[in-house]
Amino acid sequence: MRAEIISVGTELLLGHIVNTNAAYLSKKLALFGIDLYRQATIGDNPARLVSLLKEALSRSDIVFTTGGLGPTVDDITLSSVCSVTSKELVFNKKIEKCIAGHFRKRGLKKIPEDAGRQAYIPRGARWFKNKVGTAPGILINYGQKIVVALPGPPGELIPIFEKDIIPYLKKKGLAGNQTIKTKMIKIVGLVEAEVNKIVKDLLSIGPRTTLGIYVHLGEVDLKITSKAPCLPAGRKNKKTAGREIKKLEKEIRKRLGNYIYGVDNESLEYVVGKMLSKKGALKTLAIAESCTGGLIANRITNISGSSRYFKMGIVAYSNEAKASLLGVPEGQIKKYGAVSSKVALDMAKGIKRLSKADIALGVTGIAGPKSRTDKKPLGLVYIAIASDKIKTVKKCLFVGNREEIKLQASTAALNAIRHTLI
Amino acid sequence: MRAEIISVGTELLLGHIVNTNAAYLSKKLALFGIDLYRQATIGDNPARLVSLLKEALSRSDIVFTTGGLGPTVDDITLSSVCSVTSKELVFNKKIEKCIAGHFRKRGLKKIPEDAGRQAYIPRGARWFKNKVGTAPGILINYGQKIVVALPGPPGELIPIFEKDIIPYLKKKGLAGNQTIKTKMIKIVGLVEAEVNKIVKDLLSIGPRTTLGIYVHLGEVDLKITSKAPCLPAGRKNKKTAGREIKKLEKEIRKRLGNYIYGVDNESLEYVVGKMLSKKGALKTLAIAESCTGGLIANRITNISGSSRYFKMGIVAYSNEAKASLLGVPEGQIKKYGAVSSKVALDMAKGIKRLSKADIALGVTGIAGPKSRTDKKPLGLVYIAIASDKIKTVKKCLFVGNREEIKLQASTAALNAIRHTLI
Repeated sequence: MRAEIISVGTELLLGHIVNTNAAYLSKKLALFGIDLYRQATIGDNPARLVSLLKEALSRSDIVFTTGGLGPTVDDITLSSVCSVTSKELVFNKKIEKCIAGHFRKRGLKKIPEDAGRQAYIPRGARWFKNKVGTAPGILINYGQKIVVALPGPPGELIPIFEKDIIPYLKKKGLAGNQTIKTKMIKIVGLVEAEVNKIVKDLLSIGPRTTLGIYVHLGEVDLKITSKAPCLPAGRKNKKTAGREIKKLEKEIRKRLGNYIYGVDNESLEYVVGKMLSKKGALKTLAIAESCTGGLIANRITNISGSSRYFKMGIVAYSNEAKASLLGVPEGQIKKYGAVSSKVALDMAKGIKRLSKADIALGVTGIAGPKSRTDKKPLGLVYIAIASDKIKTVKKCLFVGNREEIKLQASTAALNAIRHTLI
Repeated sequence: MRAEIISVGTELLLGHIVNTNAAYLSKKLALFGIDLYRQATIGDNPARLVSLLKEALSRSDIVFTTGGLGPTVDDITLSSVCSVTSKELVFNKKIEKCIAGHFRKRGLKKIPEDAGRQAYIPRGARWFKNKVGTAPGILINYGQKIVVALPGPPGELIPIFEKDIIPYLKKKGLAGNQTIKTKMIKIVGLVEAEVNKIVKDLLSIGPRTTLGIYVHLGEVDLKITSKAPCLPAGRKNKKTAGREIKKLEKEIRKRLGNYIYGVDNESLEYVVGKMLSKKGALKTLAIAESCTGGLIANRITNISGSSRYFKMGIVAYSNEAKASLLGVPEGQIKKYGAVSSKVALDMAKGIKRLSKADIALGVTGIAGPKSRTDKKPLGLVYIAIASDKIKTVKKCLFVGNREEIKLQASTAALNAIRHTLI
């Protein structure tokens, strides 16, 4: 089963909105083992849409359209589908009732003139009620091919797709002659090229199971994707895909060890939080940050339940604050500079003293936009940890603009906390 | 000039990432009067990409590709472009030097083996340095047509497009048979429905000049878009569009007054920073935050030059920290609760005392995921300001998840600082 997605809307071609529908549908189709061949976006132009629909139907078995189902003359999806499939638009009384009900609920007694247009659908098409808006979802059989037309607003598209389209595809046996499972392995402390070198031979082990590398600022993701053919019961295939993923994950873990901090949707701050709040071995945390300006505390406190382990944070942006709040000796700052290994460690020690936390972090660096001295480059950051057992400082050098350097520094700092807890 | 965008990447077809590049490029092309015919997305499959490139080049004058320029065998864009344009990939020593420099800056002495692949570009192509990553932007002339290949990560694509591609298109006279100018008016302190009510009659003044409402968490944007045909000199049109925008902006300002905090790309933290660092009247700032967990300090310090006015921040997440660091009387916390008007003001006064800043902010609230008491709802936040002249507390109630409440609270807090400075 091969599919394409066509998003209709001049507002997409003008970049006024980001096409989240395409990403949503793509993810769902992959999950149900439907092979997506292409996504395309076209403006509210009937001739262009007709030509695109023809192309798509010549290549693929099922075409999903999003948008263009509104009540105005700009809304061209159904008339274009009719033109391609040689069907006519016919009035549907039940849909009109739904539309009237929609407006009644909102206190309007009469259907606004244009809205009535949405009760016209291609002859013989199935329709699915839109519980949020007025445009129903439409499914048209055209020979062996299928066109599914969905409304543009994600809040209308998603419920129709989940409640009506997926069950329909499953019932007809169209969803899934295969199933796709994925697992994301999340890595911190190595750059893409280093990860690539370590797992290079695994990148082309396919065809059923593939490995991809994705890079973010300061982090690298390895994504395992495994396809398995669907068996009639629809069960065993998941097991097969799962087994393949497990095998590959084991190998990756063997090679990358502690560079792996988590899987799937786990963020670094989530993993650090989980480690700190370990049952029966709760460790508390305090943070003194300069160049990251509160970002590390912010990431830590984005996690529900962080109040259990996070005691306090100090954003000691000025030298004065470093001295008066954290007790960093002014002499140290003068002698070594605010951005130095010594000051980072003194900041960590200072916040440890103040908070009595088990683990204390001190971060100082140059986030830019410029370095004020030739001796210390932009992006230089010192990350210090002070716990009862350990006092360490790590020197890092990051590249990017101010926010990018802050983000990378915060990631390296969270990783330093993680290593203290391992 | 007719354009198409081709986004390359299986991760897009699997819905793992949302295609923000297409929206960004579309917006820019509209701005420069380049007519975008289609966006398309295709997987890492050479045969399919080659066929799509051929199609696009047969329809359009310029094709922009995004992604597929990485160092691995999965990265197929340039080889596919070569196949379509009958060119070969040739090694470019200068690009290799850039790549080596990139890794040197990150402390790696040798270019990782695969990264060298990115120094191969189609014969005769122009290339544009990637200052963030290693894949250069590429521009290939193919008869009268142009292919522009850009790297996939938005942080790499955007600088190359803005610094190199736009000037190139302008220089060659390829940009623009009409011009579109836009102005964003940024509003804080009103919800969408309130703004809508105030400007409703302006929303349909078209056709040349249009007004749109865009909503973010805690903020509302009004976007004025004005189109004007290009005159040969390419000058007068800008004036016409500019005049229309000015007229409408004036009317909007009359109606919305101080609810407007800025225009275009100005963030609230940028505007607050500008007000604090006003020439000859510098005011310093200190922040004590609880529920926002460092987010306000983080936003303030995202602005270059914030070290001039931002003295310090304390993230007093625990009651203990509120008492020991900020000197909030423990009796107050017991009597009124940590989330209370009194404690917010005590936090502001405490950080003012510690920092001697001109303006001090205290924020305490319930970010969730749940409220622990029936008396105080989730999303309740108190925002206190203490300056030499003013002591105020504002009570707010926000709806959303933990991060959404934090964001809205930080916006309201920055707005409170702004109002103190007006």
